[in-house]
Amino acid sequence: MGKLKRKEYQAELATLQVELNAMARWLQHTGKRLVVLFEGRDTAGKGGAIHAIADCLNPRQCHVVALAKPSERETGQWYFQRYVPHLPGAGEVSLFDRSWYNRAGVEKVMGYAKPDQVEAFLKQAPVFERQLVDDGVLLFKYWLAVDQEEQEERFAERQVDPLKRWKLSPIDVKAREKYADYGLARDAMFKATHNRHAPWYVVDFNDQKTGRLNLIRHLLDQLPEQHVPEVLIALPPLSGTLGKEHYTGPVKPIKGKY
Amino acid sequence: MGKLKRKEYQAELATLQVELNAMARWLQHTGKRLVVLFEGRDTAGKGGAIHAIADCLNPRQCHVVALAKPSERETGQWYFQRYVPHLPGAGEVSLFDRSWYNRAGVEKVMGYAKPDQVEAFLKQAPVFERQLVDDGVLLFKYWLAVDQEEQEERFAERQVDPLKRWKLSPIDVKAREKYADYGLARDAMFKATHNRHAPWYVVDFNDQKTGRLNLIRHLLDQLPEQHVPEVLIALPPLSGTLGKEHYTGPVKPIKGKY
Amino acid sequence: MGKLKRKEYQAELATLQVELNAMARWLQHTGKRLVVLFEGRDTAGKGGAIHAIADCLNPRQCHVVALAKPSERETGQWYFQRYVPHLPGAGEVSLFDRSWYNRAGVEKVMGYAKPDQVEAFLKQAPVFERQLVDDGVLLFKYWLAVDQEEQEERFAERQVDPLKRWKLSPIDVKAREKYADYGLARDAMFKATHNRHAPWYVVDFNDQKTGRLNLIRHLLDQLPEQHVPEVLIALPPLSGTLGKEHYTGPVKPIKGKY
Amino acid sequence: MGKLKRKEYQAELATLQVELNAMARWLQHTGKRLVVLFEGRDTAGKGGAIHAIADCLNPRQCHVVALAKPSERETGQWYFQRYVPHLPGAGEVSLFDRSWYNRAGVEKVMGYAKPDQVEAFLKQAPVFERQLVDDGVLLFKYWLAVDQEEQEERFAERQVDPLKRWKLSPIDVKAREKYADYGLARDAMFKATHNRHAPWYVVDFNDQKTGRLNLIRHLLDQLPEQHVPEVLIALPPLSGTLGKEHYTGPVKPIKGKY
Repeated sequence: MGKLKRKEYQAELATLQVELNAMARWLQHTGKRLVVLFEGRDTAGKGGAIHAIADCLNPRQCHVVALAKPSERETGQWYFQRYVPHLPGAGEVSLFDRSWYNRAGVEKVMGYAKPDQVEAFLKQAPVFERQLVDDGVLLFKYWLAVDQEEQEERFAERQVDPLKRWKLSPIDVKAREKYADYGLARDAMFKATHNRHAPWYVVDFNDQKTGRLNLIRHLLDQLPEQHVPEVLIALPPLSGTLGKEHYTGPVKPIKGKY
Repeated sequence: MGKLKRKEYQAELATLQVELNAMARWLQHTGKRLVVLFEGRDTAGKGGAIHAIADCLNPRQCHVVALAKPSERETGQWYFQRYVPHLPGAGEVSLFDRSWYNRAGVEKVMGYAKPDQVEAFLKQAPVFERQLVDDGVLLFKYWLAVDQEEQEERFAERQVDPLKRWKLSPIDVKAREKYADYGLARDAMFKATHNRHAPWYVVDFNDQKTGRLNLIRHLLDQLPEQHVPEVLIALPPLSGTLGKEHYTGPVKPIKGKY
Repeated sequence: MGKLKRKEYQAELATLQVELNAMARWLQHTGKRLVVLFEGRDTAGKGGAIHAIADCLNPRQCHVVALAKPSERETGQWYFQRYVPHLPGAGEVSLFDRSWYNRAGVEKVMGYAKPDQVEAFLKQAPVFERQLVDDGVLLFKYWLAVDQEEQEERFAERQVDPLKRWKLSPIDVKAREKYADYGLARDAMFKATHNRHAPWYVVDFNDQKTGRLNLIRHLLDQLPEQHVPEVLIALPPLSGTLGKEHYTGPVKPIKGKY
Repeated sequence: MGKLKRKEYQAELATLQVELNAMARWLQHTGKRLVVLFEGRDTAGKGGAIHAIADCLNPRQCHVVALAKPSERETGQWYFQRYVPHLPGAGEVSLFDRSWYNRAGVEKVMGYAKPDQVEAFLKQAPVFERQLVDDGVLLFKYWLAVDQEEQEERFAERQVDPLKRWKLSPIDVKAREKYADYGLARDAMFKATHNRHAPWYVVDFNDQKTGRLNLIRHLLDQLPEQHVPEVLIALPPLSGTLGKEHYTGPVKPIKGKY
């Protein structure tokens, strides 16, 4: 199967985004909360998949959570503590660009967390998630899968593409040698944290466009039938002539170069 | 001047995004902080302009701030209090999708704020901003301009396009009748808050694509010459055969529909 | 047994406070975290017991957490969400003046929470606490017990003592008629949330001074043997004459009335 | 004038605390906000003065703010940023145990802040405070004065008193040699930040009890005439016999040692 063409992709994505909007309306209507975790190897396509969802929703309803490394004080706190403030309120969506699973992935593989910390995390994560689910949070965990050959191509692209270079860090280069270790870490993570109340879903992201469509389609399919009729907002005709922007003071439009 | 074609737009945008990335590198290198406020009438194109910038930057460095309405407790606090936690740390960018200027715009026109609150705000805003600027924050305030004819077209489009319908609220319909009042409010706002340390810039957004390019070009031109050489990250060849994602447990890739 | 005399109380309290200081030193030294919940009927003496502990410790290490009622947004979040940011960092103490158990006490009895919310809470609380304990948090839950006769006396005192009148609210008056219901709610709460990893301790607070001493003594006894030798800080003699506050500008000491 | 006797002190304090309670009622009634900064040399008595006020007020209304040293991220932010979230909401009180003036005191004298940072702070502080005052915040700044002879006695006491030893840090020992420098720093601070909208008040704390009374008296005298009649809450007689705490489950009162 070849890679998806841009045109087809955009048409399909638009259709899915309409459904995402219906879902957002349903969340707002019911006060339900949605959390989606995006995990996966470097270059897998987490950021792009998140954009595909968030860009079509109200930023006051849908929040992207991409936390920086913990502060010294946070390091001493309950591991989940710094994530909790970013859980959604009624009717809201939180999309996690990496998540608490850092501890079972990069922190484990790169040795930032000690084995007993990783082990403790793997015990705690299902309990933590169970709480959220029991509280009514809709929780989905996606692993974006990419083979090493494809990953290597993307790393190479990041090296040369000035728009992607920020995605390439010295840590990535070290992590790159540990493709197999990441796989083992992921297996251990799945084993410990895949369960009925919060299952993992793997989506093939060797082709990112196909991956995004499949992920969104899958996510929508997990949610219950929901149809909140849209309130059609009328736009009665305006009286008088239409206004134009004009400026009484010294501030005038800039002379654009385009 | 006709509307910009998609292809041209994308090519130009890509060029600008490379510069935005250079800027981000410079911020990180110097620890400087950047705040950009996006203001303008409904439909002016604030969200799209913000996406054009944020989508090419590291979400851990560049934050979009789109605050919901204040809580009851926040309503009783210093007016700027709820915005302050979202100001950037060293090397970071904060893009405000609407900002503290709500009080001088929608709150004034729709009567949510009392005249003395608006007046107090117009006195305080330059002082508040001056503090940030004196502290070294790079602060830019953009007004995205749109004529009513274009605005009406966009409202109509929001009514019919299921991907844009969330942008249309009952309040918008009321606000729509007050195009002229918004203009007066903006004039008063410019008069009180346009000054050397934090000037307003108006950008014509009657064509959104052209508007975005002009805004980004303008923003880049305001920043000092900055060239931080990129650290070229080497990717030494890997030894052994390249790995593939495979799964030892029950979690397998979903069967995608695409 | 008569009520404890002030002098005796103060002497005993001072001894315990020395031990509390040793404990604080031990927490700091080991990075351990301590959480103590104070629950009990109105007038039981929660605030006074907390003061007896907090007043002798470093306010940068020991935090009193007395949350106001939840905001509208908080109401829609995971029930424990607003408490989590107040959990201690390494070496810190959090004393909760009322806690998440509000839901099983006042909210249940006064009908602010629905029965299924209370039931859900009683299931979740032990899980939530277990997580903290598993993470190494030292967690203690105290119920301060007071008979109704004593409670009535204290309510009457609150009515007439201008220093205590703020403690008497219209809600208290209603709650006052539900002494028995509070007892039943407490029994249900104990039944569901008393367990090995996070037991409840009841302390008789019919005499507040005795109650405080017993509570602190008990708390100290639960903690492991801990002796962190104090670093004796030398104060070498100063050379020269000792200075006095004097003021070169217009700001001078106020003329005190005492 | 000799030191104040404990009995007299307590009697006078109780009288003042009644007034503090009236003030708190007035704040709540009017929605006004009160901020009090406590500054002064080590051992001056900031903590004790704050306790004398906070201990008689509702902890849900009156917050003590004693911030730990800034995190790395906070260090890169606008200097006032980490203080702003602790400013009061409507009807609330914030008592700052040390404040933003750290920069002009300990940070300057001990060399933690660079001269240009201190200078920038001294320019910004009045502007920042002016904003709060213009917004309606009632802001008071107290300097607690203590002569070096008294300070030396208190340092000596901290060395030997196990209840006070936590107050003595290695930094204090170094700071102790800089009594004169602190005086100069304070003079510069007064010169730059004492003004009509937010004056400094110096209170002699060579006797702490007298100091506390004078400070509280002074604070109360600065506030406008305010008399909010107390709503007398009736306590209608209860019917039936009064209840006693009794326990149906395994949790029983602990056997206290006192």
